[in-house]
Amino acid sequence: MARYAAARRAGDLLFVSGVVAVDPVGARVLRDYGDLPAHAREQLRTLGYDTGQMTVDLFEAPPVAQSWFVLDRIRTIAREHGADMAQAVKLVQYFRDLRHYPFYNRVRGLFYPGEPPASTVVEVARFLPGDGALIEVEATIHLPA
Amino acid sequence: MARYAAARRAGDLLFVSGVVAVDPVGARVLRDYGDLPAHAREQLRTLGYDTGQMTVDLFEAPPVAQSWFVLDRIRTIAREHGADMAQAVKLVQYFRDLRHYPFYNRVRGLFYPGEPPASTVVEVARFLPGDGALIEVEATIHLPA
Amino acid sequence: MARYAAARRAGDLLFVSGVVAVDPVGARVLRDYGDLPAHAREQLRTLGYDTGQMTVDLFEAPPVAQSWFVLDRIRTIAREHGADMAQAVKLVQYFRDLRHYPFYNRVRGLFYPGEPPASTVVEVARFLPGDGALIEVEATIHLPA
Amino acid sequence: MARYAAARRAGDLLFVSGVVAVDPVGARVLRDYGDLPAHAREQLRTLGYDTGQMTVDLFEAPPVAQSWFVLDRIRTIAREHGADMAQAVKLVQYFRDLRHYPFYNRVRGLFYPGEPPASTVVEVARFLPGDGALIEVEATIHLPA
Amino acid sequence: MARYAAARRAGDLLFVSGVVAVDPVGARVLRDYGDLPAHAREQLRTLGYDTGQMTVDLFEAPPVAQSWFVLDRIRTIAREHGADMAQAVKLVQYFRDLRHYPFYNRVRGLFYPGEPPASTVVEVARFLPGDGALIEVEATIHLPA
Amino acid sequence: MARYAAARRAGDLLFVSGVVAVDPVGARVLRDYGDLPAHAREQLRTLGYDTGQMTVDLFEAPPVAQSWFVLDRIRTIAREHGADMAQAVKLVQYFRDLRHYPFYNRVRGLFYPGEPPASTVVEVARFLPGDGALIEVEATIHLPA
Amino acid sequence: MARYAAARRAGDLLFVSGVVAVDPVGARVLRDYGDLPAHAREQLRTLGYDTGQMTVDLFEAPPVAQSWFVLDRIRTIAREHGADMAQAVKLVQYFRDLRHYPFYNRVRGLFYPGEPPASTVVEVARFLPGDGALIEVEATIHLPA
Amino acid sequence: MARYAAARRAGDLLFVSGVVAVDPVGARVLRDYGDLPAHAREQLRTLGYDTGQMTVDLFEAPPVAQSWFVLDRIRTIAREHGADMAQAVKLVQYFRDLRHYPFYNRVRGLFYPGEPPASTVVEVARFLPGDGALIEVEATIHLPA
Amino acid sequence: MARYAAARRAGDLLFVSGVVAVDPVGARVLRDYGDLPAHAREQLRTLGYDTGQMTVDLFEAPPVAQSWFVLDRIRTIAREHGADMAQAVKLVQYFRDLRHYPFYNRVRGLFYPGEPPASTVVEVARFLPGDGALIEVEATIHLPA
Amino acid sequence: MARYAAARRAGDLLFVSGVVAVDPVGARVLRDYGDLPAHAREQLRTLGYDTGQMTVDLFEAPPVAQSWFVLDRIRTIAREHGADMAQAVKLVQYFRDLRHYPFYNRVRGLFYPGEPPASTVVEVARFLPGDGALIEVEATIHLPA
Amino acid sequence: MARYAAARRAGDLLFVSGVVAVDPVGARVLRDYGDLPAHAREQLRTLGYDTGQMTVDLFEAPPVAQSWFVLDRIRTIAREHGADMAQAVKLVQYFRDLRHYPFYNRVRGLFYPGEPPASTVVEVARFLPGDGALIEVEATIHLPA
Amino acid sequence: MARYAAARRAGDLLFVSGVVAVDPVGARVLRDYGDLPAHAREQLRTLGYDTGQMTVDLFEAPPVAQSWFVLDRIRTIAREHGADMAQAVKLVQYFRDLRHYPFYNRVRGLFYPGEPPASTVVEVARFLPGDGALIEVEATIHLPA
Repeated sequence: MARYAAARRAGDLLFVSGVVAVDPVGARVLRDYGDLPAHAREQLRTLGYDTGQMTVDLFEAPPVAQSWFVLDRIRTIAREHGADMAQAVKLVQYFRDLRHYPFYNRVRGLFYPGEPPASTVVEVARFLPGDGALIEVEATIHLPA
Repeated sequence: MARYAAARRAGDLLFVSGVVAVDPVGARVLRDYGDLPAHAREQLRTLGYDTGQMTVDLFEAPPVAQSWFVLDRIRTIAREHGADMAQAVKLVQYFRDLRHYPFYNRVRGLFYPGEPPASTVVEVARFLPGDGALIEVEATIHLPA
Repeated sequence: MARYAAARRAGDLLFVSGVVAVDPVGARVLRDYGDLPAHAREQLRTLGYDTGQMTVDLFEAPPVAQSWFVLDRIRTIAREHGADMAQAVKLVQYFRDLRHYPFYNRVRGLFYPGEPPASTVVEVARFLPGDGALIEVEATIHLPA
Repeated sequence: MARYAAARRAGDLLFVSGVVAVDPVGARVLRDYGDLPAHAREQLRTLGYDTGQMTVDLFEAPPVAQSWFVLDRIRTIAREHGADMAQAVKLVQYFRDLRHYPFYNRVRGLFYPGEPPASTVVEVARFLPGDGALIEVEATIHLPA
Repeated sequence: MARYAAARRAGDLLFVSGVVAVDPVGARVLRDYGDLPAHAREQLRTLGYDTGQMTVDLFEAPPVAQSWFVLDRIRTIAREHGADMAQAVKLVQYFRDLRHYPFYNRVRGLFYPGEPPASTVVEVARFLPGDGALIEVEATIHLPA
Repeated sequence: MARYAAARRAGDLLFVSGVVAVDPVGARVLRDYGDLPAHAREQLRTLGYDTGQMTVDLFEAPPVAQSWFVLDRIRTIAREHGADMAQAVKLVQYFRDLRHYPFYNRVRGLFYPGEPPASTVVEVARFLPGDGALIEVEATIHLPA
Repeated sequence: MARYAAARRAGDLLFVSGVVAVDPVGARVLRDYGDLPAHAREQLRTLGYDTGQMTVDLFEAPPVAQSWFVLDRIRTIAREHGADMAQAVKLVQYFRDLRHYPFYNRVRGLFYPGEPPASTVVEVARFLPGDGALIEVEATIHLPA
Repeated sequence: MARYAAARRAGDLLFVSGVVAVDPVGARVLRDYGDLPAHAREQLRTLGYDTGQMTVDLFEAPPVAQSWFVLDRIRTIAREHGADMAQAVKLVQYFRDLRHYPFYNRVRGLFYPGEPPASTVVEVARFLPGDGALIEVEATIHLPA
Repeated sequence: MARYAAARRAGDLLFVSGVVAVDPVGARVLRDYGDLPAHAREQLRTLGYDTGQMTVDLFEAPPVAQSWFVLDRIRTIAREHGADMAQAVKLVQYFRDLRHYPFYNRVRGLFYPGEPPASTVVEVARFLPGDGALIEVEATIHLPA
Repeated sequence: MARYAAARRAGDLLFVSGVVAVDPVGARVLRDYGDLPAHAREQLRTLGYDTGQMTVDLFEAPPVAQSWFVLDRIRTIAREHGADMAQAVKLVQYFRDLRHYPFYNRVRGLFYPGEPPASTVVEVARFLPGDGALIEVEATIHLPA
Repeated sequence: MARYAAARRAGDLLFVSGVVAVDPVGARVLRDYGDLPAHAREQLRTLGYDTGQMTVDLFEAPPVAQSWFVLDRIRTIAREHGADMAQAVKLVQYFRDLRHYPFYNRVRGLFYPGEPPASTVVEVARFLPGDGALIEVEATIHLPA
Repeated sequence: MARYAAARRAGDLLFVSGVVAVDPVGARVLRDYGDLPAHAREQLRTLGYDTGQMTVDLFEAPPVAQSWFVLDRIRTIAREHGADMAQAVKLVQYFRDLRHYPFYNRVRGLFYPGEPPASTVVEVARFLPGDGALIEVEATIHLPA
């Protein structure tokens, strides 16, 4: 993307920059289940997604795969700072189309088996790098000393 | 709504999830002054709202009533954590139509008789659970030890 | 604008209200390079803006000038609290049109010569006081004791 | 405007031409409270308008100020014919946006402290001299011999 | 609705306020034949309406029922002033969609078995109290001494 | 058109039904100067219209010719009741596009060489019998005993 | 139209091509009652259509006349194969605007005095030969040996 | 709905009229899981639907519940003619929004555990009785002697 | 695509599922002449298509190539059941844009040198798997014993 | 059209005014092959156009016939100045819809059997005398001494 | 504007850059008759424009005044090169709205009392410096040695 | 593209066909800086473009790279005729979006270090080969003997 910090710490809080599902290598927005690692796809299949039927996956893959990618990226950042996802206590979740919320909601359940985060959900107009990006999530992670 | 936390604490901050004016019992978005308690309506009448004239209330009741409901819900959460509204130091206020801002602004004055909060106001596209929800407010509450 | 606080402190964090490029005197949204102080225009010229050619500046001046104004205002607030821009560790940056991002990005580089902030970028519908406002930025500043 | 009569009498009726809020001197549509005389602004403040807060007045001033101007102009015409506002027995009130009706309705109450007029309200497309004109009112005044 | 007079007299004319099909009790716009009294439905059946077939009545009931209600309300006002419908010599008839004119026209024939009124028909944008209101009629009634 | 009265008298007032430029024989909306009588075309040429240049007349003929036809029809009705156009003291003039007002205004000057009428002008959505009708005028004529 | 078969037989079924109301001689879509034979118009008058009032027939004639034409054409094809309309056991009925369904429904009742057909109704975008065609019907006729 | 046959037989084929999810009693389009019988909801829960979370069910319930209702209705008609769903050999499936296809597809799997039907899927504009109806299915059932 | 049968037999009829031009290997909608076999391109060149000029083929290739692919697929299914294209006695042909009909019509002539099929043509909104699919054809094939 | 020169010479260049397909007699935009002379239609048939099938010609006739008319008019002007089409060395070709380019391109080939002209192609909004005009061509002809 | 040449000579031709009605001092697009010199206004009054009636001039002044300004600017450039307007042998005239053509056409007659130029007229989308610019004219001037 | 001449000479003028940024090999519209040769990218970097930051280049690369490609192509044609860019005395520059003008203007400065050309700039609807093409330039080159 552009010059920015993935996250910045302020006292016991770690502010994570808004994350969209852009593959850092190909600089492409994720669209397909094939863009995810095998263990992600296994998890998504337990939710009934990644069916292998083209006309089903066609509509579901973009929001489902992006949901997994974005939350996984936040978990990775949390781990890089010695935390886990449960410490990501606040999420602001922007959607281009709120009809994608049910997909996102099921996927988020995989990342928060315990107490869920404080959560804000709004539908906005667009994200960087463009129309294909459907979901952006901004996390605040608690890193108590 | 879905599975989420009403608020999560991180050190001396309490992050409140974005609030919309959904009646928890009927799972309905508020539309009318009749959806509010009597003391709320009395306060709103001091601002010139809740006139009892159908063609006036028709346009004003949805944003006015939702403004009161949403801010009252944040105050309730603050009180559940031993704080008051003055400690809700930061509000991010999302509108579907900024022409509702004057209504909201007058109502917010009822909740912040003293120092106002840090305040961000943006017009976005839509909220959960749908088109009837006009205002969403996300609060950060200071809970010093 | 309306009654609100420019910023509110909570522990070691300073929450800055969302800033738009409204000239406090004339209550006008900035549109032209002429609305900026001379040292701002000199800096923008190092980026290739403020060309003096009407048909070029016509399209670039509004987002470029607003970017400078908004970030300068945040820097001023930081300084009023004894901090500098590097301590503005988190920015939420709302755009009316993400095609203005390249302009903003170059201008922001003038304010963050060192480590960039945690950064969220979304395109939304509208800001106060209306259609001319192209960019709104909400900052969180770290004020360690 | 163009060549037309402000009003024409037919027996005991005075037909008043449709009135929009155009300042006869500057040939401008009214937009701000500052376009009104001081006594008008005092009256409007009793209704809670003309707050002095930019982001509130921004949306409310155009319909509120135009409502006052238009009704005041009809009252002036009535007086020029030896009548008062109570004799303006019929009003056809055209709006560009019926969401302005509550504003107009409160202002009209200032002009009709007693019996209200027969009243027709419709939302139409546009008025002369253009998009800024939000309200047009046509009055019929009873001038019994 | 709001504070207004159902009609105002000026000499031998009675100016009737614009009427829309709002049920005064439930404050609802009429949508169904079931909202009408039995004798109205009988009359409408003589025109081929109120068929009892859902997919037919679905489209026809709103304009047909509103047409009857609005004209009946004007007739009632006329009678309250000792006149009958034949004395309602002038109607201004506003529609949200002129494709409803044939429905209205047949219904009006029930109210004017003799000489029809002077009649103006225009399609406008919207009525109070909102989108469901399809027809508004303003009448002038002749009340010779 | 449909069953209606061209005009109805009430005391010393003659209420004329709204007039659109429909040729009573061919049941067609007027579009061309060729639809007008020769003396009308001569008058319009004194205003600079009816140029004989196709690409000029193409845009101007519909509103200019309809303006003449509609006002001429009102004058005819006035004459049928022993009055002249000067007694048409009030006109409500509906346009589908207010950009046609200058055309209409010049033509109306031909019909009111003396004192102009009380005049209301609004842009609405559509007229009977459909999109080609650009102007509808409703007149009130004073017929003193 | 283009090269196609009006109908093709397969065993005891006759598949009729989709029919639109195009006059085979003038290659025009039907718009007026005058395009129908006299006995058709008589039947339609029993339903209250073909009123002779221009502003009523204007909106109703296109869907009503096309409904009669299309169903009559299917009946003719049935008769050419020795069947009657009752054997047209299945109709797929495409509309450009489902608000025309009540008109069609009444007309279809003239063709099916007894048991109605299996019936599918959907609103689609457009038909050949273009925008004027409002209804297309595809029939399957049972021709038992 | 209107007068039509639920199905008509022609030889060994049963043509079923297009089915939409209209509750025959209340004449309402189905919107919620609560409109379905308990055994339907149990089946849908095996697919991961009917979650009980409002913001999830909000978007999914209409297409999922309508899919079940429509296919169940076809199965009922098949059974009334001594057939089962496997004999519904051809389905034409109309959608208002093809993004509902994945929901429908999963539900249809519950009705066709064995060989699937010949299947046509198209997105069209609208169904009777209106905008709430999302899916219409037309079935052809094989009833060999 | 999804789980469905390419065709299902019912007595002497073979119902073919709606066919769109999706390459079964790459799961892509056909766009270019290069997606077709050489003998197809030779045939299309006899119609004047596949010109090799980029700006000509750009607009014509998608509908022309899809027309050939879809009809060829139906012919293949017919042959798999021992029939030929002449036995495909009924086609329902859905278009996203009826301006593609002339292209399709010429191509279909290649497949039906003799008697044409019963034919229904409608313009609808969209097909699976999405916007690139321009044409869908559903065939009924007669397979007499 | 209006007052203009068909062409003006400047040295060895002849500037031809932009040409649209308006029949100089009837002042109508060409729509049908029947508007062309017989030899034009013969030529167009060699390209596969002018098929005589209504639903094919319906879409193709307007751009094909206008292309021939416009280029033929330029050729006529060239001949009037002693030149031939090969000397029309530069064409600026405006389209209302670039999807008409393939039609135009084939027709232009009939006029330039040898070296083609320098050519600019852009899609614009509209031409005189209105929406039916699909193509406008401006030519520059070389008339060496 | 930006860096460009007002005109460039090539042999006996002078190519004039496209001209829009921008006042070189105030860098504003002309909107009012007051922006023109007195002799221009006198000429325009001979055409019936510049009436002094606000609601008439409101719609006519922008295209009329811009037409005069643009053509006057071309005449000035011609004169600077020792030519007169008659030598401006070719004009390409771009409009944002062709309904302004009649205004332009009358004004152009003032500049070409003799032989008119070769003329191309097209409606396009927009000009520099923005929406207010309604007309752009590009001239080619013949400057024979 | 299609059959056309890159340029045609007429006396001392060379008319260059309108150029769009289509890569002649891949028949693709240019989108990225990577589509340009290295020396082009070096030049563009001196203007501050080709930053290597994805979210910046994303919006700027298409108009910047196309501007360079198109002007370079004209320079190449000029050189093939023994001229240089300074002799390209007239450019007609069509944009799909005038907001791209500043990008184009800076790039053009690289090609015209000396006297700029006569220049016409208009925003139109679309170019061949489609939506990705943002700029088309038509040049006239002076080739004095």
